[in-house]
This record gives sequence, C-alpha cells and structure tokens, in this order.
Amino acid sequence: MTQAPGTQAPRSRAARTREECAALDAADPLAALREEFTLPAGVLYLDGNSLGALPRRTPARVARMIEEEWGNGLIRSWNDAGWYELPRRLGDRLSPLLGAAPGQVVVCDSTSVNLFKVLGAALRLRPGRSAVLAERAAFPTDLYITEGVTSLFDGARAELLGSAAELDDRLGPDTAAVVLSHVDYRTGELLDMAAVTARVHAAGALMIWDVCHTAGAVPLAFDACDVDFAVGCGYKYLNGGPGAPAFLYAAERHHADARQPLSGWFGHARPFAFEPGYEPVADIGRFLTGTPPLLGMAALDASLDVWEKVDPAEVRAKSLSLTSLFMDLVEPLGLDVVTPRETDLRGSQVALRHEDGYAVVQALIERGVIGDFRAPDLVRFGFTPLYLSHTDVFDAARHLAEVLESGEWREERFTRRGAVT
Amino acid sequence: MTQAPGTQAPRSRAARTREECAALDAADPLAALREEFTLPAGVLYLDGNSLGALPRRTPARVARMIEEEWGNGLIRSWNDAGWYELPRRLGDRLSPLLGAAPGQVVVCDSTSVNLFKVLGAALRLRPGRSAVLAERAAFPTDLYITEGVTSLFDGARAELLGSAAELDDRLGPDTAAVVLSHVDYRTGELLDMAAVTARVHAAGALMIWDVCHTAGAVPLAFDACDVDFAVGCGYKYLNGGPGAPAFLYAAERHHADARQPLSGWFGHARPFAFEPGYEPVADIGRFLTGTPPLLGMAALDASLDVWEKVDPAEVRAKSLSLTSLFMDLVEPLGLDVVTPRETDLRGSQVALRHEDGYAVVQALIERGVIGDFRAPDLVRFGFTPLYLSHTDVFDAARHLAEVLESGEWREERFTRRGAVT
Repeated sequence: MTQAPGTQAPRSRAARTREECAALDAADPLAALREEFTLPAGVLYLDGNSLGALPRRTPARVARMIEEEWGNGLIRSWNDAGWYELPRRLGDRLSPLLGAAPGQVVVCDSTSVNLFKVLGAALRLRPGRSAVLAERAAFPTDLYITEGVTSLFDGARAELLGSAAELDDRLGPDTAAVVLSHVDYRTGELLDMAAVTARVHAAGALMIWDVCHTAGAVPLAFDACDVDFAVGCGYKYLNGGPGAPAFLYAAERHHADARQPLSGWFGHARPFAFEPGYEPVADIGRFLTGTPPLLGMAALDASLDVWEKVDPAEVRAKSLSLTSLFMDLVEPLGLDVVTPRETDLRGSQVALRHEDGYAVVQALIERGVIGDFRAPDLVRFGFTPLYLSHTDVFDAARHLAEVLESGEWREERFTRRGAVT
Repeated sequence: MTQAPGTQAPRSRAARTREECAALDAADPLAALREEFTLPAGVLYLDGNSLGALPRRTPARVARMIEEEWGNGLIRSWNDAGWYELPRRLGDRLSPLLGAAPGQVVVCDSTSVNLFKVLGAALRLRPGRSAVLAERAAFPTDLYITEGVTSLFDGARAELLGSAAELDDRLGPDTAAVVLSHVDYRTGELLDMAAVTARVHAAGALMIWDVCHTAGAVPLAFDACDVDFAVGCGYKYLNGGPGAPAFLYAAERHHADARQPLSGWFGHARPFAFEPGYEPVADIGRFLTGTPPLLGMAALDASLDVWEKVDPAEVRAKSLSLTSLFMDLVEPLGLDVVTPRETDLRGSQVALRHEDGYAVVQALIERGVIGDFRAPDLVRFGFTPLYLSHTDVFDAARHLAEVLESGEWREERFTRRGAVT
C-alpha cells in the first residue's frame, strides 16, 4: 500500500466505554477543529460523506463576495478581487490534499461534467483503443457519463466489471482508459491507487480516479501514483457546501496534448481576445469551460482555510480510529458489516447491511443521528475527523443499538419512503 | 417583428436636458425598482449586460441557504428545503420572461455547458445532416462549443456565416442546426426570432438561440416563435450574481426524443435508484447533468423575486427609452454609433466605435461611469431598466462628452492594458 501515507494503527481498538472514548478525545490533536464548524444542537452528523458540515467562516466569506466584491466591486471584481484566477487558485489550494504539485488542478463545474471532459480527453489520447473499463458498482453518474462519452466516439464502448479485481483479465490492447472510484460509495472499500494505476499503465491505458469519497478523508498522492486524471466533488469531506464546484486533476505530462471536448471560452489561450477559433491554453486551464460558479467557489475557499491547519496524516489516523471504534461497537449487534475491517482497505465510512435499512435510518434521524441509506439494504455512516469525536461515535452506536433492540424502526412513519433518500 | 411584444415608440425622443430626463423619470412606472438594488455610491453602472447589479434581497436569501438549510438542515434539506426541485422550479420561475409554458426550462451549469447539451441533442435529432451554422461574430464560447461538439460527430462541421443575413444562402438539406445570438454582444443588434426560426425550420433544421443578451431585457416568446432550444446566462440582466447558473430551454415536443450527451445522474429517470444504466427522465430534467450549484441558485432565486413585480413590456419600453436617449445625447460627439437606431433592431445596449476605446472606458471608470470595452475598438454601454434612470443616462453621456473633449483618456494610466478587460 503506498497511497495512504498517513495510514497508522487505529488508536481506539481497546475503547469500549464512553469514558475510554473521552480519553481518546482528550488526546486528539484534531479536537479543536470542531470549533471550526457549525452543527445544530442535538445532532450527531454521520453523513459528511454525502454533504459536509458548514464551516464557521463560510457565511462571512460568501457574504463578502456578495456584498463587497459583487455589490460594490461589480464587474471590476473580475480583476480586482481575483475572480478570474479562482478556478486555478482553488485548485492549487486543494493540491496538498491530493498529493499534486501546483498547476495540475482546477475547481469548476460538477464531478459529472468534469468526468466527461477527462474521458473525452483520454479517448483522444489513445486513438485506436475503444474500451473504457468501469465497475458496475461505481457511483452511477460515472457510468452514465462513461456511456454518454463513449456514445460519441466511433466504436468506443463502456465495459462494466463485476469488481476491480477483474481488471487483470479485462485490461488489454483495446483498453483506452479505466475509471474507478477510489472508495466505493456504498461499501466504503478503498482501492490501492498506486498498484491499480501501475497495472492500467502496463496495459498502455490511462487511469482516471473518482476521489469523491476520499478527498479530505484519505491522503492522496496523485503525482507519486502516476495518476493521469482525477475528478472529485467539493461538498463531501471538503465541506464546500451543497452543490459545491467540483475539481479536476490532469497530470502535467498531458497538458500539451489533452483535448477535452467541452471547449468553452474559459479554457481558451486568450479568452478576452474574442477570437472565433478555439485554441486551448497551454496549462491546466484548458479543462475549464464556461464562467465559473463564483458563489460556490467562495464557500469552498472558506472551507479550504480550515484545511490549512490540518495534517492529512492526522486526519487519516483519526478517521481510522473512529471507524474502527464504530465497527467494534456495532459488532455485537449482529449486523453484517460490509466495510472491510482491514485499515488499508477502507475509506472513512462504515456500511452495515439491514433488510429494512431505510426505516432504521429514519428512526436514527428522529433521534438526531444522521446517516443515510443506499438501496437495497445498506445503512451508511460517514466519519469526518474534523468535527466528530470518539464520544460522538460511542453515542451514535448506542442509539443504533437502542433502535434495533427496541424495534422502533418498525413504526409506520419510518417505513414510509420519502421522495429522495 | 413578432418576438418583442413590448416594443413601443421610445418615450425620450425629445429629451435633451437633465430636467426633461427628470420628468421622464417622474413618470417611469419602473422607477421604484431602483430600491430593489444595492449599488455603490458615486457609480453610474452601465455594465449590467456583463454582470447585473446586486438585488437587495440576495444576501439574506443566500445566507438563509447557508446557515439554515445547509448549516442546520444539512443533508435533510435536499427534501425539506426543496433543493432537489430547484433546477426545475427556477426554470419555471424564469419561463414568463422567456415566453415559455412551464416544464420546458431548467436552471443548471454554465451557458457553454448547456449549449453543448442542446447541440449534441440537435445533431442526434437530425441524423444524416452534418452542418451547424453560426455567425463568425457570435460570442466566441458559442463557436468554441460548436467546434467541440461537431468534432465528436462523424462528419459534422461548423460553418461560420459573415452575418445572419447569409442564412438564406447557406441553409440547406445538410443543415442540422443553427445557433444564433438573439442580440449581438458587441453591436447590440437584435435578430427577428420568429422570422429566423421559421426560415431555419423551412430548411428542416433546428433552431438554437443564445439569449444571454436578451433574457431580462427584451421580452421573449420561445413557444410562440416555435424555438427548438435556447440557452442563456443568469448573471447579466437577470442579476443572478457572478457565475450564476445558466438556463436551458427545450421545447416540449423534443423531450421524448432528445438525447443530450452529458448524461449525468440528475437527468436520470430514477436518480436515487442508483442503477448502472442511463435512462433519461421523460421531461425537461433530462437536460440536467450533475449536482446543481445550489448557492448560485439561491442567489438567482432571490433575483427572480424582483421580476415577479415587473411587466416585461414595460421593461422593454423603458430600455428603448434609455438607449434612444443615450444615442441622441452622444450623436453630437461625432462617434460612430454601431448599434442600430431602429428600435426593432436593437437590444438593451449601445456600442460606440473609438480607436482608443480601451482608454476611454478606463477614463470613464475613474469617473464612476462603468461600461466596458470589446476589442478592437468598441465601447459598450448596457442599460438595465430596473435600476437605471434617464438622469443616470444623461449624466453618463455628459461624462463621456467631457472625457472626449478634455482628452483625459490619453493619460498613460488609462492607456495601459490590464489583465482582463
């Protein structure tokens, strides 16, 4: 395992009581970061892998963009407030979390749109090869976008794998690119970025990682792992807010030749010369398309301030401590723990199987314990080391035990499905 | 001319003094709307065609999304605060300004990305036809995106016209689609949406309008004009803020068959069933792609509150009154007025030609009169009827006269080019 430099033995293996958890919290070097976030009273938030919590400094930063930069600066802020540079500047601010040297990341658009760009670029960088491999269990938008891109390239096709373990059998001279999630959004299983990337390269294909479920939770090493492209979202462990702009990594070695199909004016070599022909800028900026979503970028900018104070290795260590603790505590409940126990094989979430998982999640939410449900039967809990403590985990596990033991989840108000789960 | 139901004789033809302008303002039915906007003291803002001003209610609306919906509601707000419905709900709120029945507009992504979607859908709706016609003078991102899309379709190509007047000669059995700006971003010239669309349809092609420079300034009638697709941005006359999400119109008759290539999970028939295969939802939602940029949507939502109070015909009448007044006042200065004098032929901006236009604009900005410059020699002024008065226009024209008569624009600090103009 080389992709997780912060991987350490979990510190909580022995904790079984709330007092032991409190002792772990007292020794937690990240404990003070809780004050950087606003969380509602009475809530144990274990869904930061779906939407991260609100950093305390975000409202003021967004208000400043709205009232000062937009309201007073108006159009002048494109220059005076640095709006034009934000996609690259935020990309560079993210780079330490991604293990990327500066100049290889831009913040822009959504993860889906960014995946379209890098897949389009990858297919062009491998002319004559027509297969894009992806896991059938990938987050579906990755598959839908792969389907959308390949439908536009003559002869190209998506090939779905039962799991990444099939790669060795399926990689071949016709493989143009492989798209994989670093952490599975349901099971929480973590792939070995360095090893998988090397295998894909050995077949002459390009490797694209979706790191939506690792950026901000697991230290990444894109450059060291020789990754070609990566995409990820800003609204999970990065705490950039609902619908935060996503990010896109392209290794510098591809900047000269990569031609992505969403060729909008922000990716042009001279966007303000207003020329009729498209000429991509020489750097990572060629992966930009339209005018960037600036309010969302202000929120992400504020959330990245928090990360300035954080050592990614410490985040990983605490993440493993929290997830190990939770698995230890729920093991006696007799549920099927889907997430691997091996620390090298998981991200920052724990998934449990329960045939009435939807109702269990609703009953927990009524108690203020927010996790989520993924069909058909997974109950998912995300553990964000920046604002969760070991006692939070202890309390959440106790609530889960009470919900299951009491059978309260069987009440009709919990079993009735809402519009969006 | 049928596309501008509010077109009326301008009311200011006779105004030549500041007192006459004040009299026009006293009779202006839209005058009170100025109070809906925050503008810095000492600024005459004639650049709302580039970035609209800040509506007074926007900061509180965005703060509510951040602090209440995100901070307190967290993931629950996808249901409880209606986040999931926002792309469609904002589309429906926009529809009266676009002359569209509900259910045909979504708010999402950028104009460039949305143009990619509708062009991709259009090429698929016209198999066997390979040309997309566009004006060489179009806003460049439209040309870049056309280039990007056509590069993905076997045999497809962009054909650039010297002007829309060449359409009759160039339309033919190989024309799949035509993309035109309703108002030219430089000259301010307005095309006849109904007549052009009819000509394109007569050739069997699909018509795509870019209404960035008309939405919110000129009443639109997409349904009545039989438009196929349209795209536009939220940050100009709609005042949605910097990088506001854009919008996309697709006529209902195309919903069943249109297949846009950016097939992300928000366009799926069952996005939360997490199925591996893409199946577009039956309605306008199939033009959505990734998770929507919610903070920007909150700002656009607030700005649309202002439009609830507005009759688009009155906006158009005042727009023509302001632009006519400005042209009357600058005519004696001897500049080449590029924008048509005929009210049926212009949008809500006036462009003047000056060989040192960049320096003239900078000198005006120092006086607090904000317009902008478009290479090589155009000085552009946008007139937003919601927050500009006739006396504002009078004062701006006087500043322009003083800048030109004094020659102050020749000072070195004005002639030196900035990074972004």
